[in-house]
Amino acid sequence: MEEKVLKAIQDDYPDDFAWCYGCGRLNEDGYHLRTGWMGENTITIFNPRPANIGMPGFVYGGLIASLIDCHGTGSASLYLHRKNGNEVGDGVNPPRFVTGSLKVDFLHPTPVGEQLKAIGTVEEIHPKKYKVYTEVFAGEKLVVTGEVAAVLMPKTFRKEE
Amino acid sequence: MEEKVLKAIQDDYPDDFAWCYGCGRLNEDGYHLRTGWMGENTITIFNPRPANIGMPGFVYGGLIASLIDCHGTGSASLYLHRKNGNEVGDGVNPPRFVTGSLKVDFLHPTPVGEQLKAIGTVEEIHPKKYKVYTEVFAGEKLVVTGEVAAVLMPKTFRKEE
Repeated sequence: MEEKVLKAIQDDYPDDFAWCYGCGRLNEDGYHLRTGWMGENTITIFNPRPANIGMPGFVYGGLIASLIDCHGTGSASLYLHRKNGNEVGDGVNPPRFVTGSLKVDFLHPTPVGEQLKAIGTVEEIHPKKYKVYTEVFAGEKLVVTGEVAAVLMPKTFRKEE
Repeated sequence: MEEKVLKAIQDDYPDDFAWCYGCGRLNEDGYHLRTGWMGENTITIFNPRPANIGMPGFVYGGLIASLIDCHGTGSASLYLHRKNGNEVGDGVNPPRFVTGSLKVDFLHPTPVGEQLKAIGTVEEIHPKKYKVYTEVFAGEKLVVTGEVAAVLMPKTFRKEE
């Protein structure tokens, strides 16, 4: 059974910041990763495309790194949005994060044909910096762990005016 | 001026292992990353596609992680191939590596419109495990650093027979 995140933070990103190849809803060629709450954890579901292999039969690790990346920034956004008293879908623009660093440990080869779930735990390091610890499951099996340092988007990322 | 790697290790991967979304020459939808020697360092050149943005004007970090990933396994393959007395293009199949872990530090936003160059230094940790330290330049500017632990491909990655 395919599962789906119902309320995703990326649905609420302002249009100007909704173009990410990994998680931007406005990027037609992108992966449209979507991150929501699952109890006190965050979750992003990913169904790799047939071409997204590393070796025949196994998902490309670079794509799993992308999943962990966008899951990390999305999770930090969910966390700070809630801390600010807001929730997905309430009409308030959520904060937008960028990735400061990314670490991925590939514990086992990730088989194709399974829905991938990234489950995250968010830790506040600083009001503008969050660590997101992620476990990626292929079906029931833990295959990859990841860690993202997500930083509140600095003004240098805004388009030159 | 666009530069190109002339002799790339990925050109010599056996067909069965040339399907990687990042660097497999047989993956029609993939990025066809190619890694070669540049003196004692390794180099992979990447020209992101217009869709590969994180924010308007900046390259998607997940793609840069993919660049560092394939550059890492390719660099380890180049290194061990040479250690074994072989060179790219000599008709001998090079060893194929997989990624054990990946670490990426985003130092500066990576602007679109610049050719990206990943420059690697390989260190042997064990005959079957290599660390590849990578610096990614956008034009002349160092924007990202990365570290890959590349592991000689275990038999579990081969297709079931």
